[in-house]
Amino acid sequence: MNERLPQYADVEMAARRIAPFIHKTPVLTSATFNRITGGELFFKCENFQKVGAFKFRGACNAISRLSSADGKKGIVTHSSGNHAQAVALAANLHGYKAVIVMPENAPKVKVNAVRGYGADIVFCEPTIDAREETAQAVIAKTGATFIHPYNHPDVIAGQGTSAMELLHDHPDLDMIIAPVGGGGLISGTAITAKFTKPEMKVFAAEPELADDAYRSIHSGKIEPVLRTDTVADGLRTSLGSLTFRIIQKHVDDIVTVPETSIIRDMRAVWERMKILIEPSCAVPLSAIIDGKIDVKGKKAGIILTGGNVDLDHLPW
Amino acid sequence: MNERLPQYADVEMAARRIAPFIHKTPVLTSATFNRITGGELFFKCENFQKVGAFKFRGACNAISRLSSADGKKGIVTHSSGNHAQAVALAANLHGYKAVIVMPENAPKVKVNAVRGYGADIVFCEPTIDAREETAQAVIAKTGATFIHPYNHPDVIAGQGTSAMELLHDHPDLDMIIAPVGGGGLISGTAITAKFTKPEMKVFAAEPELADDAYRSIHSGKIEPVLRTDTVADGLRTSLGSLTFRIIQKHVDDIVTVPETSIIRDMRAVWERMKILIEPSCAVPLSAIIDGKIDVKGKKAGIILTGGNVDLDHLPW
Repeated sequence: MNERLPQYADVEMAARRIAPFIHKTPVLTSATFNRITGGELFFKCENFQKVGAFKFRGACNAISRLSSADGKKGIVTHSSGNHAQAVALAANLHGYKAVIVMPENAPKVKVNAVRGYGADIVFCEPTIDAREETAQAVIAKTGATFIHPYNHPDVIAGQGTSAMELLHDHPDLDMIIAPVGGGGLISGTAITAKFTKPEMKVFAAEPELADDAYRSIHSGKIEPVLRTDTVADGLRTSLGSLTFRIIQKHVDDIVTVPETSIIRDMRAVWERMKILIEPSCAVPLSAIIDGKIDVKGKKAGIILTGGNVDLDHLPW
Repeated sequence: MNERLPQYADVEMAARRIAPFIHKTPVLTSATFNRITGGELFFKCENFQKVGAFKFRGACNAISRLSSADGKKGIVTHSSGNHAQAVALAANLHGYKAVIVMPENAPKVKVNAVRGYGADIVFCEPTIDAREETAQAVIAKTGATFIHPYNHPDVIAGQGTSAMELLHDHPDLDMIIAPVGGGGLISGTAITAKFTKPEMKVFAAEPELADDAYRSIHSGKIEPVLRTDTVADGLRTSLGSLTFRIIQKHVDDIVTVPETSIIRDMRAVWERMKILIEPSCAVPLSAIIDGKIDVKGKKAGIILTGGNVDLDHLPW
């Protein structure tokens, strides 16, 4: 595999490129969770990002680099949700047409949001193969540019800008934790953290039911997701060739947490912090609360990935 | 009625007194709601206040003024919820004991929170009379000091500190809107707004099902709440002698909104702004969206009163 890995310089360029479009998201703290965990936690609130998720950063960076000629042929992607909204809005803001391939079981709130940003939707079966075949069919017909949800250097660089903002506000963090699905966020985060402060620990957290990243790191090759029923619907994907290599190089450890912990801590954040987070956001916090990552006496940054949930189908 | 009405100087003193205890809450904006309403809205997020509601400001101010001798005899109050938590925590922080009289139908999440702050709870029937009789019985037995949820000058002055912070951050507001239940918040808000900028409009919003303030202002006397089943559980109380006079003097208009609008807009804030607000918070926004208050081309401040909701019993 000779693909060039994105570097911190790409993250810095992405930050400048997307600055006019994104929200600089706030960092919240919680006396309750500090007391429970014994650490000092800093929650980077990408749930307040445009489209309600960090995914807007990467999509916006990738789309902003297209030539006008390519942009006019349109943009296509496949996504279980947040990347879909991100591409839809970013394309819209650039005056381009987007076609989004979505699994049939995508949350209704996400389907409606994508439509609201003016994109066309093509539904497919909820498997990686079906998504990719459907997207290829669109490309063959229209010449649209495919923007992968995570295995794309510009997407990874864009996702890294969240950690860049967090570390700018809190340069004294001892560690940073993000969930891992396809690995775009943790890759951009790890590139940024290790360049900014090499001694900083970077941890990835994932659901036990979608522990492909954990298995991949231990087997030394990309392992498939074996089931797609974790409540953390943003994390139902396998690693890509780029994200796997970046995680191997820069992530200190990957830990897994059970569904019950994810649901418990998602609800606890709602009740205690009064913010909506989607299940994926709770995975790093669960890793701490369940004792898989020790934050006692440490300052830990957590990327809250998004806040798009279907209020008619809450997991409790 | 010769009770002295609180003045802006009391709000300023309250702000200094409670500063070490409270959160200075953020002010959020929303491109979506600006687009929908045609105005520029500034949401003062008391849902992020300690105990999850503005009530902590007033309770903390009132309790901080007690003599140590009185404090040691304890504090008693009655409340449908947020004032209960506020008194429980404020008493706890001062090293005093609190007894809270709560209606049997108070949300479970609020009952648990009050217990969590170390207060004792005495349940009563969900009527104003039952609450007051039960509180009087506690006072007769213990010599505790009663802190009324709203008809108390120190409580009103404390509640005014939220608008004081909002106007400090956004001095160019054209109007400020708060919900009205017992009237403590709108009273403190109106005193602050009219002193700071006399030409600023101050509006109160309440549910149609609990339109006692609206009827009181039009009849010229305090009218009772006729039913206690509005979804806006923080607004099920009648005005007091102090709050009625302050509203008569300083509030420009009172408008009412139906239950369907309150639930719709509560949910819209959750979905769009990714923050938890309780139903009472949505009442001012519903007044704008339903066309009862015109914000077109204006800057309007809205006090979001709290975020304590029972996640097992959402109103949609």
